[in-house]
Amino acid sequence: MTQALPKLGWIGLGNMGIPMVANLLAAGYDVTVYNRTLDKADALRAKGAQVASTAQELVSGVDIVITMLTDSATVEAVLFGEAGAAAAMRAGQTLIDMSTIAPETSRSIGARLRAQGIGFLDAPVSGSVKPATDGTLVILVGGDKELYETCSPIFRALGKASYHFGENGQGANAKLAVNLMLGITMQGLSEALVLAEKTGLDRQTVLDMFGQTAIASPILAMKTPSILAGHFDAAFALKHMEKDFGLALEAAKTAEASLPATSAAHQTFVAAKANGHGDQDIAVILLQLEAMSGINR
Amino acid sequence: MTQALPKLGWIGLGNMGIPMVANLLAAGYDVTVYNRTLDKADALRAKGAQVASTAQELVSGVDIVITMLTDSATVEAVLFGEAGAAAAMRAGQTLIDMSTIAPETSRSIGARLRAQGIGFLDAPVSGSVKPATDGTLVILVGGDKELYETCSPIFRALGKASYHFGENGQGANAKLAVNLMLGITMQGLSEALVLAEKTGLDRQTVLDMFGQTAIASPILAMKTPSILAGHFDAAFALKHMEKDFGLALEAAKTAEASLPATSAAHQTFVAAKANGHGDQDIAVILLQLEAMSGINR
Amino acid sequence: MTQALPKLGWIGLGNMGIPMVANLLAAGYDVTVYNRTLDKADALRAKGAQVASTAQELVSGVDIVITMLTDSATVEAVLFGEAGAAAAMRAGQTLIDMSTIAPETSRSIGARLRAQGIGFLDAPVSGSVKPATDGTLVILVGGDKELYETCSPIFRALGKASYHFGENGQGANAKLAVNLMLGITMQGLSEALVLAEKTGLDRQTVLDMFGQTAIASPILAMKTPSILAGHFDAAFALKHMEKDFGLALEAAKTAEASLPATSAAHQTFVAAKANGHGDQDIAVILLQLEAMSGINR
Amino acid sequence: MTQALPKLGWIGLGNMGIPMVANLLAAGYDVTVYNRTLDKADALRAKGAQVASTAQELVSGVDIVITMLTDSATVEAVLFGEAGAAAAMRAGQTLIDMSTIAPETSRSIGARLRAQGIGFLDAPVSGSVKPATDGTLVILVGGDKELYETCSPIFRALGKASYHFGENGQGANAKLAVNLMLGITMQGLSEALVLAEKTGLDRQTVLDMFGQTAIASPILAMKTPSILAGHFDAAFALKHMEKDFGLALEAAKTAEASLPATSAAHQTFVAAKANGHGDQDIAVILLQLEAMSGINR
Repeated sequence: MTQALPKLGWIGLGNMGIPMVANLLAAGYDVTVYNRTLDKADALRAKGAQVASTAQELVSGVDIVITMLTDSATVEAVLFGEAGAAAAMRAGQTLIDMSTIAPETSRSIGARLRAQGIGFLDAPVSGSVKPATDGTLVILVGGDKELYETCSPIFRALGKASYHFGENGQGANAKLAVNLMLGITMQGLSEALVLAEKTGLDRQTVLDMFGQTAIASPILAMKTPSILAGHFDAAFALKHMEKDFGLALEAAKTAEASLPATSAAHQTFVAAKANGHGDQDIAVILLQLEAMSGINR
Repeated sequence: MTQALPKLGWIGLGNMGIPMVANLLAAGYDVTVYNRTLDKADALRAKGAQVASTAQELVSGVDIVITMLTDSATVEAVLFGEAGAAAAMRAGQTLIDMSTIAPETSRSIGARLRAQGIGFLDAPVSGSVKPATDGTLVILVGGDKELYETCSPIFRALGKASYHFGENGQGANAKLAVNLMLGITMQGLSEALVLAEKTGLDRQTVLDMFGQTAIASPILAMKTPSILAGHFDAAFALKHMEKDFGLALEAAKTAEASLPATSAAHQTFVAAKANGHGDQDIAVILLQLEAMSGINR
Repeated sequence: MTQALPKLGWIGLGNMGIPMVANLLAAGYDVTVYNRTLDKADALRAKGAQVASTAQELVSGVDIVITMLTDSATVEAVLFGEAGAAAAMRAGQTLIDMSTIAPETSRSIGARLRAQGIGFLDAPVSGSVKPATDGTLVILVGGDKELYETCSPIFRALGKASYHFGENGQGANAKLAVNLMLGITMQGLSEALVLAEKTGLDRQTVLDMFGQTAIASPILAMKTPSILAGHFDAAFALKHMEKDFGLALEAAKTAEASLPATSAAHQTFVAAKANGHGDQDIAVILLQLEAMSGINR
Repeated sequence: MTQALPKLGWIGLGNMGIPMVANLLAAGYDVTVYNRTLDKADALRAKGAQVASTAQELVSGVDIVITMLTDSATVEAVLFGEAGAAAAMRAGQTLIDMSTIAPETSRSIGARLRAQGIGFLDAPVSGSVKPATDGTLVILVGGDKELYETCSPIFRALGKASYHFGENGQGANAKLAVNLMLGITMQGLSEALVLAEKTGLDRQTVLDMFGQTAIASPILAMKTPSILAGHFDAAFALKHMEKDFGLALEAAKTAEASLPATSAAHQTFVAAKANGHGDQDIAVILLQLEAMSGINR
């Protein structure tokens, strides 16, 4: 006899949320969605999602609520602001926050929800729109271990792997570590390409060569076409990476970790944002580094 | 009718040279070797190599001379120093230098050899002992295009791919670009691991997770076991990476390329060398970053 | 006819607060003081200060309240926490906060106090214990211009110069700018001394020479004796400079200012703190840089 | 009886050389000058200088030769190149090089001259055109101590202080240390001003305030007018500071000194040079940092 799947409520239908909900629907889950601008829900309604008209309405009829929002402030507002979701939740329910937020915000949310008898997992993801669509995200979880195991089938519907890192906030900390490495990889790649360009090497040949060596990460393969084309439509907006660098350095300061290359890269991302590249893809950091080397396109 | 293979002379039997010569022998080449300390040649003699007792003796009987040495100064000394190989070479021969040296040294060597009627390719490699053994190096070539094509069968015996980047010095420049990226990758990975450790994450789980994400480069997989074991026997010694960072930043200064994260990483490698880690593997940069964050093992 | 001086209340009797209050008493002000640990007030009582036993008691009998506390959180707690001073203040009174806190905290405090009809100036100081004692602080003020002018006699009793930088928060921003420069000066001086030492120069001669050149700032003269003696008792504790670097970089991130050398210096200060130097004087950054260059005393 | 003053020969009549020779003439020295472009000598001829038409002619009739040239390569060429001065010098003469060059070049020059029986001091100066004119340079000397003392009257005619730092190359090393600090001071000042500007502070008020604090170095006072006017005519060209940063970091690499803020500042100077600011004054680094923060004038 199969156990019935839990009823899910989903708040946040951005570029990530929409394909993630589609994967949950495809896996057989009953999903109710809510978004501030409801027209985002139309495509999901066609795939079987139900649509709530307020966050409080959404939480009342489900077992597990999942949030996928922009930043710490938005998560705070949606959960604990005016007409916030948390006020309408009841003991025994579970909230999973898959946004990338500050670890201390995750810890604070967890403490407040537990005081209401509500379980909480922080479960940010590594991967952007394509893995969200393909169900190949990597999911980084903090919170009660047993609750993590209970929710694992949901994570399997959304990703190719999930990891439990400890108490609330540790999923967020793991996300900062992997994104820090992602940001440095883009910065390092771009510095290598600027040096190559200034020393007269052909960019296409350099990138082909990189793809054969020990530095050939998936992100290199992913970003190579847009670098060669000079198109920087955002898969992962530079301003979000800048924010994540900031969160990582804030966490590092508190934990007394000295991160010299991370902070150097962060300052370049701040420069890129100050020069109008915030809404473009992280790969656009190349143009900022080019400008700093006197190459102005 | 098959064309006869050129006779090869090889100078430099370090960790890289020995397996590379073995691959040339396995591909059917007639190879004569020379090394300052001749006992290094014993294993290769057993595989069919001939052994010359001086560099000048070596070059006299071959078509193509290949050098694989430590740094710019050693290549200069072996070629143009007292009893140097170049003085014994004749017009029509070819020299291929596969060492990692400064681009301007490669250009200078090329000019001097061409004046003698000797062809010259700078052909440094990406990859350390294991790909040298497996014949899966990536070879980065500068020099005359036709000469590059003539020598391609040799490169195919040594590596899985070779690229022609332009005139002499451009192979060296390409090597600096890829090694810069390699060094930043190790620095970034180590900063991510220090942050993870200081925020209480389990290292094994973090590395497992990294291996599933977009940052999962081959170098990550290669270095993960030694990081987990805390053993840093050199596959690629930190002092050589420090030297390459220095060459890259020197080339960048001349070319007016501003490389903020590269220079931050370089200074950490200098610190690691100053603290006695120069002969250990590049992965030991992690211990230097840990020390800078108050973790002293 | 001379106008009567306003009655002052002073909260916070650390290394800075005590000599500052002494200067106000010497200038003829009637000052009531409050500190969490009241024994700090004894010496001031002997000089004529009155002592309140709670912050709320203190504010009730004075015209102008001055706070000189450790950080944003402490100022928040003293003003708006349990039994906080703000609750006991009345319209028409003035609060001057001379602590170094985040600009946005200053703005937020100003808004809340103005809503109660209370005037607010943020007035952090540049200078540590000696100028506080000598009455030669430099005072950086944000808030209503007219209120600044009204309070100028107080600033003249405490310092040799005061500047008005605009609305609330701008005094705090000016403080971040000058402290950023102070921190970089210490970092730069220390890097110069490490280079000098590693290249075999005599430290005393180097410092004598520096004192004759264009870099001969007052801070160089102030710190030279402790550098030569290797004694780092805190005039300005490294952990406070690390905090101020953090506040400056946070403000820079928000304002989209890219500060590469500041962030490099900050990471060294974080390293120094992680290695146990937080309570020593900022000049101890030299020892951290020495350790990073393999000099371990 | 007064001892006769030694006869001096001076090679290099740039912005620094001309006023320095004028001071030697004013002190009563008999000075013969040589410069590649001889019209530079006209004003000095009017003040009593004799003019040689070649470097070799110059050295033949004097006791002490002083060189004040652009960089290591120029000094090498003038001394040891075709028709170089050294070949015409004889045992017992002295050469003082006051250029800013690499320490290892100074050591190498010293060794070659001593082999000819010629004494050598490396004696670079701290200070630019104004102190050169006022005779208030600071002179940093490496080489034989007794020779230093013999030459001290010359240094007193040129500067307000001179220091002996040890053997040849140590004057050059001391110069790198002080210039490193000068460059970081300009970078730090500019970062502080960018933060101030982005947070809405008035630049004039900020600079006035800085001038009252512990960071008020002479260089701050010197550069304030050009910063406020936005005029960056070179007193000390940015490209020379960029070169000196490069020499300092090269010396640091060799000596295993890790200099994180220096290298961050150097990369900004490289960026400024790449963006066309090389011939402007070092204070123009402010414009490069502004551009990196999105302020484009």
